[in-house]
Amino acid sequence: MYIIDEKSKTPLYIQLYNEIKNDIIKNYKKSDKLPSTRKIASLYNLSKNTVKTAYSQLEVEGYIKSCPQSAFVVTDTINLNFSKNPSFKNLSTIINTPKETKKYLYNFFPACLEKDSFPLKIWKKIFNKVIDNSLDFGKYPCGEGEFGLRVEISKYLNHYRAVKCDAEQIIVYSGFVDSMGLIARILKKDYHIFASENPGYYLGQQVFDDYGYKIEKISIDKNGLNIDNLKKSNAKLVYITPSHQYPTGVLMPINNRQKLLKWANDENGLIIEDDYDSELRYSSRPIPSLQGLDLNDRVIFLGTFSKSLSPALRISYIVLPNHLLPLYKKCFDAGISRVPLVMQKTLEYFMKEGHWDRHLRKIRTLNQKKHNLMKKLLIEKLGSTMKIENQGGGLAISINPKPKFDWDLLKELSEKNKIKVYFAKNFTGGEWQALVMGFGGLKENEIEDAINIFSKIWKICILE
Amino acid sequence: MYIIDEKSKTPLYIQLYNEIKNDIIKNYKKSDKLPSTRKIASLYNLSKNTVKTAYSQLEVEGYIKSCPQSAFVVTDTINLNFSKNPSFKNLSTIINTPKETKKYLYNFFPACLEKDSFPLKIWKKIFNKVIDNSLDFGKYPCGEGEFGLRVEISKYLNHYRAVKCDAEQIIVYSGFVDSMGLIARILKKDYHIFASENPGYYLGQQVFDDYGYKIEKISIDKNGLNIDNLKKSNAKLVYITPSHQYPTGVLMPINNRQKLLKWANDENGLIIEDDYDSELRYSSRPIPSLQGLDLNDRVIFLGTFSKSLSPALRISYIVLPNHLLPLYKKCFDAGISRVPLVMQKTLEYFMKEGHWDRHLRKIRTLNQKKHNLMKKLLIEKLGSTMKIENQGGGLAISINPKPKFDWDLLKELSEKNKIKVYFAKNFTGGEWQALVMGFGGLKENEIEDAINIFSKIWKICILE
Repeated sequence: MYIIDEKSKTPLYIQLYNEIKNDIIKNYKKSDKLPSTRKIASLYNLSKNTVKTAYSQLEVEGYIKSCPQSAFVVTDTINLNFSKNPSFKNLSTIINTPKETKKYLYNFFPACLEKDSFPLKIWKKIFNKVIDNSLDFGKYPCGEGEFGLRVEISKYLNHYRAVKCDAEQIIVYSGFVDSMGLIARILKKDYHIFASENPGYYLGQQVFDDYGYKIEKISIDKNGLNIDNLKKSNAKLVYITPSHQYPTGVLMPINNRQKLLKWANDENGLIIEDDYDSELRYSSRPIPSLQGLDLNDRVIFLGTFSKSLSPALRISYIVLPNHLLPLYKKCFDAGISRVPLVMQKTLEYFMKEGHWDRHLRKIRTLNQKKHNLMKKLLIEKLGSTMKIENQGGGLAISINPKPKFDWDLLKELSEKNKIKVYFAKNFTGGEWQALVMGFGGLKENEIEDAINIFSKIWKICILE
Repeated sequence: MYIIDEKSKTPLYIQLYNEIKNDIIKNYKKSDKLPSTRKIASLYNLSKNTVKTAYSQLEVEGYIKSCPQSAFVVTDTINLNFSKNPSFKNLSTIINTPKETKKYLYNFFPACLEKDSFPLKIWKKIFNKVIDNSLDFGKYPCGEGEFGLRVEISKYLNHYRAVKCDAEQIIVYSGFVDSMGLIARILKKDYHIFASENPGYYLGQQVFDDYGYKIEKISIDKNGLNIDNLKKSNAKLVYITPSHQYPTGVLMPINNRQKLLKWANDENGLIIEDDYDSELRYSSRPIPSLQGLDLNDRVIFLGTFSKSLSPALRISYIVLPNHLLPLYKKCFDAGISRVPLVMQKTLEYFMKEGHWDRHLRKIRTLNQKKHNLMKKLLIEKLGSTMKIENQGGGLAISINPKPKFDWDLLKELSEKNKIKVYFAKNFTGGEWQALVMGFGGLKENEIEDAINIFSKIWKICILE
């Protein structure tokens, strides 16, 4: 008995189709004959057409097939409820993870910006200007990114980062992991070892590890990457953060940069320069890029808008040396941009109209103030019990305790007091430890209170 | 002699810093002494502070170091102009690829939509509603995607695609390649062979190939994937397009779906169901998903907004079985969304307010009309010289010539007549050939003219 509700919003033929389908699954066997469309129509007071449409959908999906004399038979016995295979791990584990809703009083996350620092009004205004009929939402955006945006990025890089490049060398991507993924893909055939700083940012290593590269960790000293150890590693490809080493903050001086470029030239090597937050430098001018010193096309340059504009935009970029462009173009996914067209266009005009310029100055001043305030407070409150490991740039100050210290207690007490703290080890996956005290997401007037609470916890954790 | 321009916008200390830096690179050797700051100040009529700031930047970057009696010496001989290594391939090939600006009269691209079909006004209105202070541009968006959007996608999938899932199972991604990349990463440890349809979509294979999977191509027959051949392949992971096979258009009937699900259950297998354009079905209702038939959590379901809303938005989604969620959460880049926050929010409200629903009906009707018109015209103009390989859904009709045919001439004449045509082989990388005649990007009133020109070319290419 099929239940057909004439008052339902669902069309009658769909109701009938569903009822018959369930009936077939539960009660029919292969080659069983279905009632004729005429019979169903008269039985349920439906038009013959309604029944025919339902039967034809069942036929399209392969439940039934038509036979001579317009009869329909079931194609096969449909039993989807197989006994479960017990060896399939976790199979029936339904995960009910309620969303983590823990609210922190203060969060020292080292890679976020103050909510109010995003130029919301200007962004909105530009968006409304660019979203018109000139944008083609019917097409895939250009693989490398919109040319106009690439021009703006290249101008910015020329001027602010001393990067030597044309717009043609810029590929717009949706963040660091995606950028690194592309590089891993295009270099796979020619490079097999990925050298990375130790300590260094773990995400880069993970991307290359996933693509089957052997990972070599090269030690960091006061001059940044140790080039002698790099030579010993046999790697021909190295990932570095020369202008603000992650996580130590070491700046690679000119003579070590020169040595590294010479290594690349002698060894047919390639250098991936990650310039992640170099606009944010507070005690000197930003350090000109390594790429700009390179006369032999050995440097792939990576940048992002996440640290100075907004991580919520998901826009990054790669500058490829000219000789890698053919490899990029051969890459199977080169034609496919990850970044929504309208985001690209908005950013393009944001840069073109000078807002990016002004924003950079604003965001640098804002974060410099917060940096200096946090540094002052940390020195005041923790004094000689603390050693500053990394300061003067970016969105965090890294510190370590000088006396013996109960790290577990620090974690426990921070959670209890609703203070979220971060540890360098979690970002580097190595042995190098420090507390990474982010100020980017805190307002100036919150920093004092946050450090007050933090310093009380800190003092309890000192063991000597 | 340094050139300092007092009228320039560039601060004096930066001009001086640049001049001295170039001087050091060109003319200085290790341990050479620099003129005192006092001397430079008086020589160029600059304040002593200006000179000190320039020197201090040079010191930060490692060009000079300070010695007793406030003298500065050069740290090292800086010579960046190494002789180029001749074995570095393509090194000095500067690629000057002028942007391809060729304009086609008609473009039969099979994966685009009519420009005017995008709901620009509504999108703009919703964007302006959602972009306010409730959005935090200072933070990375939630890795899985915004929960509200995931709820809307799950409701849509439940209702329209008979997919059984909760919002927690939805991961929002930035397109097919990215979605497949995530799956390749999380399954890498447990699966090593990737089975794919033959003919089938080449991009899926490429992603898995890049992650080191062995690729097994499984033949397609009139029931879709040949399950017996799948069994022989020893693969435990298979990628399929069951509702509209790419590129043949074959619909996998219920008994083959059942066989496939039984295979997955018996073999601890997993099925990746790509539902890429199943909303666009013109001769019957959309076919309910394979995922919805599966009672044993064997199906990973992929969908996209590129085929029905806009490829320029770059939004896709994955539905993971519950037992794979822990693997996803362990994945190193699980915390990092690729999709801009404001795009997610706009789409969420677009769906929530019923626009997606209305848009789907509109876009289906629009493309159905164009599909039927193109089919009618192809039959009229090419008649018995043509065999239709794939029709009734999506954004293209695939055809093959019945008589002997000069394919090269077709390419040549199409280009000459500014008609862009597409070949199935280019999307499948295999032997299966057809002309893929996309109508998605053409307006209804353009189709007749486009097919007129095309049919004239076609006739010239017939060899018998």
